[in-house]
Amino acid sequence: MIKNIKINDGDAVRDLQTLIRQPSVSAKNQGLVECAKLLAQIMLNAGIDTKLLYLTNNNSTEGEEEDNNSNIPSSPATQPPPLSSPPPIVYGEVKSKSNPNGKTILFYNHYDVQPVEPIELWDKNPFSGNVEGNYIFGRGAVDDKGELIARIKALEYYIKKTNDVPCNVKFIVEGEEEIGSVHLKEYISLYKEKFKCDGVIWESGFVDTRGRPIISLGQKGILSIEIVSKGPCRDAHSSLAALIENPTWSLIRLLNTLRDNNGNILIENWYNEVRGFTDEEISLIEKEPFDEDALMKEYGISSFINNAKGIEVKKAFAGMPTCNISGLVSGYVGEGSKTVLPSTTVARLDFRLVPDMIPQIQFERLKKHIRNYLLSTSNNNNNNYNGGSSNNTTIEIRLLGSEPATRTSINHPFVNIIKEAAIEVYGDAIINVSSAGTGPMYYINKLLGVPSVCIGGTDIPNRSHSPNEYMRIDLLNKTIKCMIVILEKFAFSCY
Amino acid sequence: MIKNIKINDGDAVRDLQTLIRQPSVSAKNQGLVECAKLLAQIMLNAGIDTKLLYLTNNNSTEGEEEDNNSNIPSSPATQPPPLSSPPPIVYGEVKSKSNPNGKTILFYNHYDVQPVEPIELWDKNPFSGNVEGNYIFGRGAVDDKGELIARIKALEYYIKKTNDVPCNVKFIVEGEEEIGSVHLKEYISLYKEKFKCDGVIWESGFVDTRGRPIISLGQKGILSIEIVSKGPCRDAHSSLAALIENPTWSLIRLLNTLRDNNGNILIENWYNEVRGFTDEEISLIEKEPFDEDALMKEYGISSFINNAKGIEVKKAFAGMPTCNISGLVSGYVGEGSKTVLPSTTVARLDFRLVPDMIPQIQFERLKKHIRNYLLSTSNNNNNNYNGGSSNNTTIEIRLLGSEPATRTSINHPFVNIIKEAAIEVYGDAIINVSSAGTGPMYYINKLLGVPSVCIGGTDIPNRSHSPNEYMRIDLLNKTIKCMIVILEKFAFSCY
Repeated sequence: MIKNIKINDGDAVRDLQTLIRQPSVSAKNQGLVECAKLLAQIMLNAGIDTKLLYLTNNNSTEGEEEDNNSNIPSSPATQPPPLSSPPPIVYGEVKSKSNPNGKTILFYNHYDVQPVEPIELWDKNPFSGNVEGNYIFGRGAVDDKGELIARIKALEYYIKKTNDVPCNVKFIVEGEEEIGSVHLKEYISLYKEKFKCDGVIWESGFVDTRGRPIISLGQKGILSIEIVSKGPCRDAHSSLAALIENPTWSLIRLLNTLRDNNGNILIENWYNEVRGFTDEEISLIEKEPFDEDALMKEYGISSFINNAKGIEVKKAFAGMPTCNISGLVSGYVGEGSKTVLPSTTVARLDFRLVPDMIPQIQFERLKKHIRNYLLSTSNNNNNNYNGGSSNNTTIEIRLLGSEPATRTSINHPFVNIIKEAAIEVYGDAIINVSSAGTGPMYYINKLLGVPSVCIGGTDIPNRSHSPNEYMRIDLLNKTIKCMIVILEKFAFSCY
Repeated sequence: MIKNIKINDGDAVRDLQTLIRQPSVSAKNQGLVECAKLLAQIMLNAGIDTKLLYLTNNNSTEGEEEDNNSNIPSSPATQPPPLSSPPPIVYGEVKSKSNPNGKTILFYNHYDVQPVEPIELWDKNPFSGNVEGNYIFGRGAVDDKGELIARIKALEYYIKKTNDVPCNVKFIVEGEEEIGSVHLKEYISLYKEKFKCDGVIWESGFVDTRGRPIISLGQKGILSIEIVSKGPCRDAHSSLAALIENPTWSLIRLLNTLRDNNGNILIENWYNEVRGFTDEEISLIEKEPFDEDALMKEYGISSFINNAKGIEVKKAFAGMPTCNISGLVSGYVGEGSKTVLPSTTVARLDFRLVPDMIPQIQFERLKKHIRNYLLSTSNNNNNNYNGGSSNNTTIEIRLLGSEPATRTSINHPFVNIIKEAAIEVYGDAIINVSSAGTGPMYYINKLLGVPSVCIGGTDIPNRSHSPNEYMRIDLLNKTIKCMIVILEKFAFSCY
């Protein structure tokens, strides 16, 4: 069947440009509803039955929480949600006429994008969707509007050719992925019946430099926290450093206790629940290509943490819990100088987690570590200890967000279907046990009870989250083809 | 004579508001020349012969480097200096008609101010000069525009009343005090003859909670540095924390080696040249009142560093070398979150120095400490050591500025003149061996060969360098009176 389906790449590029040109930056709550409506129109045009789903406060039935089709996107929703409510999920569905009782595949994607800053590093307007040769540039070109368009177009071409689809298909396209999928769990709980499916194709997937798709089966989790160290109640002149303790010192001493020079996290029991790799996973990791030199060159470094090489690098990337300082601020480092003793110092950290680590438990361990640390410094220095304070410094810790890690078993038949489809289109495929990144895959796997697999057309140096993000048009088309083959193979599988 | 001199406080307040309303933030090179010209006009109006002095590249005579009076401030200087040149010194002079061969007193002040950040903590616009009851609020209200206006008005009222001044008077008002008086040394060398005097009244001085002026005889020195820790050549996604070392960790480990929990600096030989206090100084320090509770209350703390109490607090404030982190920045701590592994982390530190410590030598000791630290971590972790780098992190250190410490001898007759004047106006006076702050007093004392004494009207909890800085109007007026008495007593002294 695939041989007869026509891929019209101009068509896919135009739809992608349309989506890129509608900014949808979730971190700034910019253009989300507008983008959701525009996307719904594109999906409707493709032949996908599409609705905007909202979370509402009442416990009414699902139907009452949906925008009516006819309201998308030409008129405002009949029950417009409050301004402060989360952005809608764009939900799409196509029932197979020939195979209505067969399996259902669900595509998980997102229509929100990362902020474009630093804007001065973009060659063109980040929302222009500028095409140059084989490249479409713009924020979201690949992450995730490009991947999403590939899936929509696969459906559209299939329907146009056959007036049907080989299996039931669902789409969940959320608007908060780039800010931690804040409401996805709630959405899934509320619309659990609607989202019922047999397997999920995750938002994206990489294609390596040799053109082989990397089929990834998991995601690390994350624990994002903020530590605030408070000293004097107002900034002081730095001459007072002879008398008043600068809260930056306490924070530095504390941070210094969290991790050793080789990347090991020093918080008690931190690694207790870490699930190791199975022998099968290890042998997959061994087979997985990894261009150490290219990565080192890209980042201008000469070695990896702990001097890791070979399989140790790949194991760390897929399965090492990390402790990273993503932000630190105190006082003044602007132009000129300011002789200030700052009243407050703030650090942000993200801890990547692996399967079986429970974010809330890890957070409690971190809090205990900080309490013990403060008690010990307090004793050593005859300072008062009062709750979270020592040496006239109060340490506060705040949970910013968390997501557990997940891995789909490499033995699940769904994995094999995707692999076979990928080999058919690309000639080869690589199985990756887990991505080093984080997403809400855990909630979908857990709440819907299904496997998730990442496959897509993202070039490895794609600059997602960075200036001059791009999608390769050849990969866009190949991904459309791959999705068509997945639909067919999935329809006729029997697990 | 003083009894007959009328203090018009509305007048002084208005002039101070005018100065506050002209932002002059040297750290940002904001409004400096504008402020200098405005100030020159206020001084001219007060009857002070005023010029703007510039540093020029040629070795011409002094006269050619000055703005002509007629050019202040109505037209641009006839030889406008290059844009990159240092801000001018506003130089003022009043020759005594009755006592032209008598002594000369010099007022040292500055027209630049600290940055206003964090702006959100100000109740009103920092450049509004808003008056509420006895308080004038605004950046520079006390430091140093308020103190400066008190001196100008003292001259103005004296001249208005007597058509003369009792001694020769000079003013040096510089525009770079808040960024370390970068060019003052050069200015003094160039205009040494013009600045010749017999004693200097320093920019400001404190008045304690019981209304007693604190006459301070010295200043600590300073060594301001920046440490930059560089890791990967670009920011990375924080999922790469499993492989790429975050340069923030190295900086934290390094900072942690500089100072212990009790404020002791751990750099080898740091204290070698520290000049202790003489017995006379110690007995002055003993007599000096110090309201520990008020200071602790102002800053919301319950103890001082090292649990110091009584004379130990006062000795630390006047004579303890310090190591302060005035700025620290890495990654992102703005709204929302950013899972980034930053390529660079920057720390700014200021070390306060005491007499006989030589900034350049201390800087060399610090650099040696960092070198040794990097070598030791490098050896421990089998990482390559290459210049200033370890664990794929490069540490760079940069000197931002320095000033040596100075103390005028408590036995100099100039000190006694000021003390007597202060007692006449305030009923009492306190001698302080050294301020905890830093200024370029060392250069003036050394290059002009004269004693310097601080006396002014700065309320102790004045919030200079902090949000909601204020000047008390009653103290402004008392300072004007005190300056008038100083002029008279100085004129008839014979040292």
